[in-house]
Amino acid sequence: MPAPSPAALDAVLRHVDASLDQSREALFSLLRIPSISAQPAHQPDCQRAAKWWRERLAGLGFDASIRETPGHPVVVGYHPGPPGYSGPHVLFYGHYDVQPVDPLALWTSPPFEPQIIDGPHGKRFVARGAVDDKGQTMTFVEALRAWQEAGGGIPARLTVVIEGEEEVGSPNLEPYIIANRQALACDVALISDTGMWNIDTPALTTRLRGMTYAQVTVRGAQRDLHSGIYGGSALNPINALTAILGDLTDADGRVQLPNFYDRVKPLPDVQRAQWDALGFDETAFLAETGLAARAGETGLSGLERLWGRPTADINGIWGGYAGPGAKTVIPAEAGAKVSFRLVPDQDPNAVFDSFRRFVTERLPPGATAEFALLSAAPAVEVNADSPWVQAALQALSDEFGKPAALVGCGGSIPVVTSFRSVLGIDTLLMGFGLEDDRMHSPNEKFEQRCLHRGIRSHARLLARFAQGTPVSA
Amino acid sequence: MPAPSPAALDAVLRHVDASLDQSREALFSLLRIPSISAQPAHQPDCQRAAKWWRERLAGLGFDASIRETPGHPVVVGYHPGPPGYSGPHVLFYGHYDVQPVDPLALWTSPPFEPQIIDGPHGKRFVARGAVDDKGQTMTFVEALRAWQEAGGGIPARLTVVIEGEEEVGSPNLEPYIIANRQALACDVALISDTGMWNIDTPALTTRLRGMTYAQVTVRGAQRDLHSGIYGGSALNPINALTAILGDLTDADGRVQLPNFYDRVKPLPDVQRAQWDALGFDETAFLAETGLAARAGETGLSGLERLWGRPTADINGIWGGYAGPGAKTVIPAEAGAKVSFRLVPDQDPNAVFDSFRRFVTERLPPGATAEFALLSAAPAVEVNADSPWVQAALQALSDEFGKPAALVGCGGSIPVVTSFRSVLGIDTLLMGFGLEDDRMHSPNEKFEQRCLHRGIRSHARLLARFAQGTPVSA
Repeated sequence: MPAPSPAALDAVLRHVDASLDQSREALFSLLRIPSISAQPAHQPDCQRAAKWWRERLAGLGFDASIRETPGHPVVVGYHPGPPGYSGPHVLFYGHYDVQPVDPLALWTSPPFEPQIIDGPHGKRFVARGAVDDKGQTMTFVEALRAWQEAGGGIPARLTVVIEGEEEVGSPNLEPYIIANRQALACDVALISDTGMWNIDTPALTTRLRGMTYAQVTVRGAQRDLHSGIYGGSALNPINALTAILGDLTDADGRVQLPNFYDRVKPLPDVQRAQWDALGFDETAFLAETGLAARAGETGLSGLERLWGRPTADINGIWGGYAGPGAKTVIPAEAGAKVSFRLVPDQDPNAVFDSFRRFVTERLPPGATAEFALLSAAPAVEVNADSPWVQAALQALSDEFGKPAALVGCGGSIPVVTSFRSVLGIDTLLMGFGLEDDRMHSPNEKFEQRCLHRGIRSHARLLARFAQGTPVSA
Repeated sequence: MPAPSPAALDAVLRHVDASLDQSREALFSLLRIPSISAQPAHQPDCQRAAKWWRERLAGLGFDASIRETPGHPVVVGYHPGPPGYSGPHVLFYGHYDVQPVDPLALWTSPPFEPQIIDGPHGKRFVARGAVDDKGQTMTFVEALRAWQEAGGGIPARLTVVIEGEEEVGSPNLEPYIIANRQALACDVALISDTGMWNIDTPALTTRLRGMTYAQVTVRGAQRDLHSGIYGGSALNPINALTAILGDLTDADGRVQLPNFYDRVKPLPDVQRAQWDALGFDETAFLAETGLAARAGETGLSGLERLWGRPTADINGIWGGYAGPGAKTVIPAEAGAKVSFRLVPDQDPNAVFDSFRRFVTERLPPGATAEFALLSAAPAVEVNADSPWVQAALQALSDEFGKPAALVGCGGSIPVVTSFRSVLGIDTLLMGFGLEDDRMHSPNEKFEQRCLHRGIRSHARLLARFAQGTPVSA
């Protein structure tokens, strides 16, 4: 079967415009379900949200079902696309669960009664989940509806996976993917859970840092000691721990673990130029948090440090007495949580081993250390030359009339790692959120303009898939 | 009036021996009062213990009264001594309150039902407060009774102060001393709340380290940040704090605060030789705590490091996430409690200022630090050549047939500092506890032999005071 004509896409886009109210109503209907995955009381709401999606997908002709897990269920839908389809089989991922709403007092309207209010970019929708991830998932599914109603049908072969535990760390998702790796086999994944560069500039996220998250406990005596009686003779585990962790980075902000940078490649010039062109204002980025100065490695741009370089951050530290007043204790132990953000080619397990070595070699006599690896995920880098990336970039620039930014993300998105490691596929991170959308915070919102252009962008991308970008990309 | 004759002292000592059961019974009667100062439920017991002491002192001819404070009361007794007394006016200090008994399950007998059990050194008494400080206070007051009953009367001018809040930090004692500085004016203070060197070797504690106890909070952003989104750009207060505190001491264990050692004098050779002669086994001292290696300054003996050198210990540290699992947070702040043990001539306030400077100078750009001084007390050193020290040494060597050890104490005893700063007097720390007395722990005990020889030692010391050691010492 031939790919859809340009006229078909035009009709689809016109239908998107004409039925935007319908898209918004669908979104509002979903936003009214308080599907907070972290709170057991909302377990039935998570079930309701899963059912909502199953029915929505079934209504679009998907073979859709609810798959139970040890936690909240996963909604899975399959559509073969048109007969003779020769494009990629696309795996779309979204999540129906949302963050808790606390502190409720800071909301200006009830979090699960979506509101339309006016903002600098036109109408915006305020509700928990507006952008993360109900609104963003809707940008894709409403594009499907437009194709279904005005374009002659769903134009691509699709598997849709919508999970209900993203906000609690997706404990059951990777096991599900592993158990269903054959049924989920696809050519490329697509997720709308990231952001645009700004309201006028779309973005594709092609780099995600990885992470090694370790915990270390340093031990001295078998019990807490009195610092008057033992001070000057007994090892103090807090002194030892701070002395060791205090050397994690040098004066230039470089991580001092042995071999840490061995596999860190310099950022390609083209990537650096592309990021430099974004005009990132690091001073303003930090000022918004109250910080008056930048940290990190010297001699590098803000975006390179945030997206393109590894880090070492102590995320927690404890030991001894932390209550009011003075307690003269030399504690038996002290501990810390230390995480390293990683860039492509760094091996998270090797970094953990190196951290272990770094600490162990510096332990003073009589001290012991115990380690735990709490999280290990490699960085993800999507080749910008891949036909999928090119298709997405083209869809975005067609829609916005300007090139999309190829951006990085300093954090990791575990599902992207699972898609790569279990299914062997790249993920297109094409999202329509804005920095000020207040994800995870009171008065979360999504711009109507972002919903609208998100739907149109996905409609265009589906057309590009349907044109048969080679499967062997 | 002439000083009591040697025959009088002999009669007193014989009476001590003959009436030791009576001394034990007095102690047991006091030990049955659960005067736990930390627990409000025991407030009436503290009152009872105060009354017990008031009556006991009144029975010995003291003008004794209970003085209320905002907390538990102070018992104060005054005895003018014999007519024509020309020796020092001695201020004896003790405390009637005791530590809580938890964990109760580890006691082999009820903590407030004193038991006599057999041990390697003969009979021992097991009860909360047995040594700390009811038994030790009794060594002094029973010597008074012996003098009263067999020596012709109380032989010295005495003020006795027995407080009820030592175990909760004596919050009301210094204010009481300041408010009553004239009524409490004395020539020398005497306390039995320290230890012997071992069961056969008496000790006089002549050095107490001082302390500067500071708290520091390092702040970065105004809120907690996500380490993926901000890591590499935003200041991490835990990283900053560990880097700073990790440099508190150098590789040789020397404290790196500016000017920290300026006023630290080398230990006098005679003091070092005296301590070396004690044959302190640092390896065994640490092994008992589970430590296999010594810490602290290099090139110095264990006792010199414990008694004669200043230290820097981090007593508590906190920041970020300390719960289970991984939380990717760059916290807004991190804090620590840091204490410095001080030796004579170090100024605790100057050390605090120096610590402030040390931290402030090392703060990375954008970080701020806030400081609190939680405790400041100078070290105390009693001149070994003073006639009071000589009198006490002589009393101890007469009793034990060998010289007493002149020892130090790594901790501070705040009341000694108050006596020096408010009343301008030295304190004789002549105690009869043993290292294994389990102070503050279950099954606290006091050896009958220590009670007995403690009483005899105090009887001898009173005789020496009565001999008229010059007041202008």
